[in-house]
Amino acid sequence: MPRRVKEGMKATVYHGVRDVRLESVPDPRIKTPTDAIVRVVRAAICGSDLWFYRGVTRWEPGERTGHEFIGIVEELGSEVRTLAKGDYVIAPFVSSDGTCEYCHAGLQTSCVHMANWGDDANGGQAEAVRVPNADGTLVKMAPGMEHDERKLASALALCDVMGTGHHGVVSAQAQRGGTIVVVGDGAVGLCGVLSAARVIGAERVIAVGHNDARLALAQAFGATHTFNSHDATVDAQIVELTRGGATAVVEAVGNQESMDLAVAVARPGGTVSFVGVPHNVKTPPMRELFLKNVALRGALAPTRAYMETLMAHVMSGAIDPSRVFDLSLPLDRVTDGYRAMDERTAVKVVLATGVH
Amino acid sequence: MPRRVKEGMKATVYHGVRDVRLESVPDPRIKTPTDAIVRVVRAAICGSDLWFYRGVTRWEPGERTGHEFIGIVEELGSEVRTLAKGDYVIAPFVSSDGTCEYCHAGLQTSCVHMANWGDDANGGQAEAVRVPNADGTLVKMAPGMEHDERKLASALALCDVMGTGHHGVVSAQAQRGGTIVVVGDGAVGLCGVLSAARVIGAERVIAVGHNDARLALAQAFGATHTFNSHDATVDAQIVELTRGGATAVVEAVGNQESMDLAVAVARPGGTVSFVGVPHNVKTPPMRELFLKNVALRGALAPTRAYMETLMAHVMSGAIDPSRVFDLSLPLDRVTDGYRAMDERTAVKVVLATGVH
Repeated sequence: MPRRVKEGMKATVYHGVRDVRLESVPDPRIKTPTDAIVRVVRAAICGSDLWFYRGVTRWEPGERTGHEFIGIVEELGSEVRTLAKGDYVIAPFVSSDGTCEYCHAGLQTSCVHMANWGDDANGGQAEAVRVPNADGTLVKMAPGMEHDERKLASALALCDVMGTGHHGVVSAQAQRGGTIVVVGDGAVGLCGVLSAARVIGAERVIAVGHNDARLALAQAFGATHTFNSHDATVDAQIVELTRGGATAVVEAVGNQESMDLAVAVARPGGTVSFVGVPHNVKTPPMRELFLKNVALRGALAPTRAYMETLMAHVMSGAIDPSRVFDLSLPLDRVTDGYRAMDERTAVKVVLATGVH
Repeated sequence: MPRRVKEGMKATVYHGVRDVRLESVPDPRIKTPTDAIVRVVRAAICGSDLWFYRGVTRWEPGERTGHEFIGIVEELGSEVRTLAKGDYVIAPFVSSDGTCEYCHAGLQTSCVHMANWGDDANGGQAEAVRVPNADGTLVKMAPGMEHDERKLASALALCDVMGTGHHGVVSAQAQRGGTIVVVGDGAVGLCGVLSAARVIGAERVIAVGHNDARLALAQAFGATHTFNSHDATVDAQIVELTRGGATAVVEAVGNQESMDLAVAVARPGGTVSFVGVPHNVKTPPMRELFLKNVALRGALAPTRAYMETLMAHVMSGAIDPSRVFDLSLPLDRVTDGYRAMDERTAVKVVLATGVH
């Protein structure tokens, strides 16, 4: 159960390229009446954290890191109505107030009242976080979820990777009984496979990756076919297998080769979704998109929109996205966690604060 | 009524950059039992013809030009069942057999049995054309259409520009009662406005162009708002007008500025279609597509799919796409027609063969 954060807590702070440190920082405090303070139970390191870690995107020294966490409500602003102290909650990676047009449409990433974790030194890889728009943002865990370590890790996956993989699949307009290709065997790609096979109910789920161990996990997640992208003819093989390409394709890598492959295996009239900022894509193959009438849909995931549904699938045992976490460390070893992901010795790292 | 093509006919032939000539060539002949020979009545010069004319795309000297024409059936292969000699017909800009999965889905541009005009020296800017897959490809004109010069020109517009503008609007998922932005005031953009306002029934149709005369035609076609793209704040003005952007946007120019503008004025969750090969687009704004969950859909138009519907709208008087033709020349002045379009003194040129 929750305990008071001591005066001064630990949070992960960016200092420079490949230099993040867990440091003592002031306690978070309620700033607006719709805020909540959440005591972090588990946090994750995201593949997208590597962009600033490696210096690809520019961050200022002093910024706090982390945007995936689950925790316990410790303090509530006076206007928060749907939460109580002691609630176990899941936080999507952006805040949303739940009242605007976009929130109602399930596009909470475009909430007009969004307040970022990034303001006033919030970050999820920490002992506590101030959560803006708490009513709209936080989702209470299903009863008993907190007592099962695997389900707790699955809850953490719903913050980002599982919701992002699912959103990619939804955005690609995958159909029950249909065919989908997921390009990428990172945590998001694997979660996309899981969503396609176990949530949407696609009949053929074709996973493309470069790591045999991850492709084996893709099979465990329901992939019916796996291809290693090191094979130069993988595009032709998939077009042959699908007799002309798949109507739904998820691009979950973000480089030129994966984007070209995703469009190459899309069926005329189909959709390719891409689930990350494509830092290493010079340009998508526009001529092919044009000639084949293919849509390329950006898919920044409103993970908040899917949390209740995906949580129900976790509780029923239909999906176990916790399996994408292959390294668990205490929060005070966050630096080792970044290094492991940077050096690709881990797919995805979970950090435990020791609270639960 | 049709008359026999004399031994040797005239056709437009590419010789080099800015060098096309009307020349005597052999008569077209039935090659397969599903072919038809069509005596051309009117042909058009397409904006996309300027790509090879200007040397942007590479063509071989000797290739025949033109892919938009209407005419009279003069000869039929033994397996053609739906047409008769003397029928007035409209030709979409690609052939399709009408039997494959894509034809059934209304995506005839991906027909697996497609045979191009380009083989064996076919081209629409000529006195006659061999049309492959005649049953699937050619559409009979509505009764009496051939007796009305404006409706005849509208029929010619259905070959490409009207169908392409309409497909752009459909591909952008424009809704009756909704809001759409059409970027571009060339023939296709203008036809997109006409489709959005008069066929789909969008409530707000926002046209962006750079030519006041064309924007006036856009208004006549049903645009409720027009903006001149020379105004540097046009994106902000449209976002303001639409309170956050339009769910449907058609990009009908094909350069970097127009692509950036189209994505900038797209509402989160919306769709941008692009109706031409974007020769001058370095890359679409991928980060913005991602953050806003916007789809960028290639939209090579299966104009065959829309011909009956659009022809009915022409015959009822609901639409008059003939107005995009602003220069009419005899076929033997085809060279002047290309020059006029290259120098932008004409939006779109119609060529009359003198048959009708």
